Amino acid sequence: MVRSLLVQSLGFRNCHRQFGKRDCLSLRPRFSSSAGFRSPSDNDVIFFRSILSDTRVVQDEDTLRVRNTDWTKQFQGRSKILLQPSTSGQVAEILQYCQREKLAVVPQAGRTGLVGGSIPLEEEIILSTEKLNLIHDLNAYTGILRCQAGCILADLQAYCADRDHLVPVDLGSKGSCQIGGNLSTNAGGQYYYRYGSLAANVLGLEVVLPDGRILNLNYQHSNLKDNTGYKIHQLFLGAEGTLGVVTGVAMLCPRMPRSRQAAFLACDRYEDVLQVLQTAKSELGEILAALEWMDQKAVELVSNNHTIPLLASDGAIYNNYLLIETHGSCPDHDQEKMEKFLELAMDKGHVVDGVLAQDLSQIESFWNIRESANPAVAATGYGYKYDVSLPLPEFVHFIDEMRSRLQGLNTLNANWGHIVDGNLHFNVTTPGLFQVDESVSDRLQPYLFESVLRRGGSISAEHGLGQTKNSYLKIVHDADCLIAMQKIKYAFDPVGILNPHKFLPRQ
Amino acid sequence: MVRSLLVQSLGFRNCHRQFGKRDCLSLRPRFSSSAGFRSPSDNDVIFFRSILSDTRVVQDEDTLRVRNTDWTKQFQGRSKILLQPSTSGQVAEILQYCQREKLAVVPQAGRTGLVGGSIPLEEEIILSTEKLNLIHDLNAYTGILRCQAGCILADLQAYCADRDHLVPVDLGSKGSCQIGGNLSTNAGGQYYYRYGSLAANVLGLEVVLPDGRILNLNYQHSNLKDNTGYKIHQLFLGAEGTLGVVTGVAMLCPRMPRSRQAAFLACDRYEDVLQVLQTAKSELGEILAALEWMDQKAVELVSNNHTIPLLASDGAIYNNYLLIETHGSCPDHDQEKMEKFLELAMDKGHVVDGVLAQDLSQIESFWNIRESANPAVAATGYGYKYDVSLPLPEFVHFIDEMRSRLQGLNTLNANWGHIVDGNLHFNVTTPGLFQVDESVSDRLQPYLFESVLRRGGSISAEHGLGQTKNSYLKIVHDADCLIAMQKIKYAFDPVGILNPHKFLPRQ
Repeated sequence: MVRSLLVQSLGFRNCHRQFGKRDCLSLRPRFSSSAGFRSPSDNDVIFFRSILSDTRVVQDEDTLRVRNTDWTKQFQGRSKILLQPSTSGQVAEILQYCQREKLAVVPQAGRTGLVGGSIPLEEEIILSTEKLNLIHDLNAYTGILRCQAGCILADLQAYCADRDHLVPVDLGSKGSCQIGGNLSTNAGGQYYYRYGSLAANVLGLEVVLPDGRILNLNYQHSNLKDNTGYKIHQLFLGAEGTLGVVTGVAMLCPRMPRSRQAAFLACDRYEDVLQVLQTAKSELGEILAALEWMDQKAVELVSNNHTIPLLASDGAIYNNYLLIETHGSCPDHDQEKMEKFLELAMDKGHVVDGVLAQDLSQIESFWNIRESANPAVAATGYGYKYDVSLPLPEFVHFIDEMRSRLQGLNTLNANWGHIVDGNLHFNVTTPGLFQVDESVSDRLQPYLFESVLRRGGSISAEHGLGQTKNSYLKIVHDADCLIAMQKIKYAFDPVGILNPHKFLPRQ
Repeated sequence: MVRSLLVQSLGFRNCHRQFGKRDCLSLRPRFSSSAGFRSPSDNDVIFFRSILSDTRVVQDEDTLRVRNTDWTKQFQGRSKILLQPSTSGQVAEILQYCQREKLAVVPQAGRTGLVGGSIPLEEEIILSTEKLNLIHDLNAYTGILRCQAGCILADLQAYCADRDHLVPVDLGSKGSCQIGGNLSTNAGGQYYYRYGSLAANVLGLEVVLPDGRILNLNYQHSNLKDNTGYKIHQLFLGAEGTLGVVTGVAMLCPRMPRSRQAAFLACDRYEDVLQVLQTAKSELGEILAALEWMDQKAVELVSNNHTIPLLASDGAIYNNYLLIETHGSCPDHDQEKMEKFLELAMDKGHVVDGVLAQDLSQIESFWNIRESANPAVAATGYGYKYDVSLPLPEFVHFIDEMRSRLQGLNTLNANWGHIVDGNLHFNVTTPGLFQVDESVSDRLQPYLFESVLRRGGSISAEHGLGQTKNSYLKIVHDADCLIAMQKIKYAFDPVGILNPHKFLPRQ
């Protein structure tokens, strides 16, 4: 109630006043002076070299240029030191020193995030987890995987697959993202519906606090059921490295499914999409693993580089496309369920065309279509990307509202999302223009977020807050919740050295 | 590492010294004097009546006698005031007053816990959630249930069943336990393997803090995916009312399975049980919902009042019994899977006898056998009940060790547990003796907990800490973790009015 009242009372005009243009677009606070951090010195480098080997204290300009930039090229820091510890003890010594010396630190994993959470704002020291990459073990009885935070997601997936298990998260950047980054952003991905949130599967963590304490939060010994003490480890999940540095995880991994199926479907109306979703839940039941939605424009853009199996005979493109995947334990049974589901959905007229993957490579090709939406849209111009949750019936109304706000501007809007989770990826680009256009950004923000909240959604479904959405937290949560969050931050990071000016609103 | 070192270095002798007889058995701290709380006065009653109606400020002796006693009759408080607010605003006014006036408060739900978490130690005011019992709604698209904390679990189950969903927790006391109590103890139950922990399914909470602030933690608007801010709501799950009073919850409820099957099986050796468990996971896959274990003695006791379908032809009782349940979406498929699993398990000789339920009433009768273990054991004498997690291969070694420690004493040991979750319920009674026998309790504690920790288990799998296990937290978590927990407690309950001297170790 408090939240919706707040949003209503702020309204469009006041929202704009509170988060004016300067505040929205200027992402550079006067860092060093306002927060009291100092620039790292040669003496600091000498200290870091005494803990790590010389090669793990990186000052090479080319490397640092890469580590200071996110892959969307939207964020750029000026850090001059990259540290690559390989033990939690080394992380502890580094953080303890930085807290004492008032040196700001940005924990960094695979740099695949979209909100600038792991990119320095200014001269923060980059603390990379990439060398913390040991896989300890996978317990054959419980399926609990224990590993260090810097393991690449794809490496963990391969390790688990060899042992008949899978990691309960999967996403496009699996080849470079690290599990510690996935945890610190509470990454979602396509199989959230089937396996639950990453946080739901974490049983234990090892975390290093800024004062050098190493918290073993049910990490050394992990049990499926453990009710001894507060669930402190949950605080570090999705906290974007603002409370401590996650160095290890114990995570529940389900059995590898014996059969996978995928179908690529077309629906005329959005209402049909909602009906198909309900039919899929009831007919596919426990084997429904993913249900992805793409709109006409997204498929049209992808079709330039991909063969889309469901182009209408006259070359026209349908209004809605769905990619459905199942994970089950019995190929024959799963196929029967899929066939019954498709029969029902087509009999009712909700699905107008569809194709079933015949093998794993066809399943891959369906996912290639879905995952090509992002680069296909990015190729057209400067991208304004929004990751939001919405009540399902609101998807179209929200999109219509935002499209009408963009009328008269040279923009392109293409959308897709993990619709079974209520997660929409809303994308606007300016065709041919590859730099920010304030006339577009002004029409989008903050109105877009206000609309999401008014409709009962979340302004960040799975990409986090970082340095792009933290200012908006004030209209997401009421003052009491923000106070509680600030208390948590202070309890763990009293000097505020970890990822300053991110995640929480700037003071 | 820290934990295991600590345990090893304490050893049996030192453990005993640290948690000596007086400390283990005397569960009554000198409450009022040490913590600075005062006894409630007539003026306090006048204030409470000004907030609630007279009938909701209960001083009736008979009612209070019941509310001061837990159902195991192990714990007894002396509270003289029971409050029954029906809104979170009333809870806020009560707590704010109690914090200012230094009045200690025990939040109380259905009083079905086993560790005395909701029973006063002395004169604490009992804050009952029983009148906070509104069910708001179940979202047809997402399956998110929103309700107040005082709803009876069975009522929620019926409400959800009417809407083709189920509550992701089920346990024997469903007829009287409240969802707020389930949340505050992070209750486990029999379907944990299939639906995950209760905490994993909670998307939002409404919580009242001792200073009267009402935190709406994604409660008014809940989305499956929401990455805006720290996961503060997770702190209140399993916290036994020591940080705030949970007044409402938004919880993910899965679709109701269309088919349920159950089998009751017998195994000779414990190693066979482990093999059956692995076969069940791989053959039943996604439909495996519950796998319960009972030992010979437990079944023998139950057989006095129940027809056990698998008594051997000569009347002998097998060494191990398993109850397996599946939840699926297609009866034919599920039956085929079950048959294949049983065929494999019997072919390999891991299952020596078995029976399949033919209908729902037979499924119920299997569960009656399992759920009768508790009362059957309790009827024999004074009960020493332990709820622990253990690595699966350790179950028998742990039981053997504890049995050998009890040799020479007149005791009976019967065991059962949610074995698929690694959750053992270890039970000792003294036949014919219905009061505590220190020669028995001395043999059990603290050695039992030390043995569990040494084997990598948890001393509380699903029953919480309350006033029975909180002292042992010092050997479960290292000093740094305890400091972190104390900081969390202080951040939310600085005066310490909520459930004092419970959950965390007494200072």
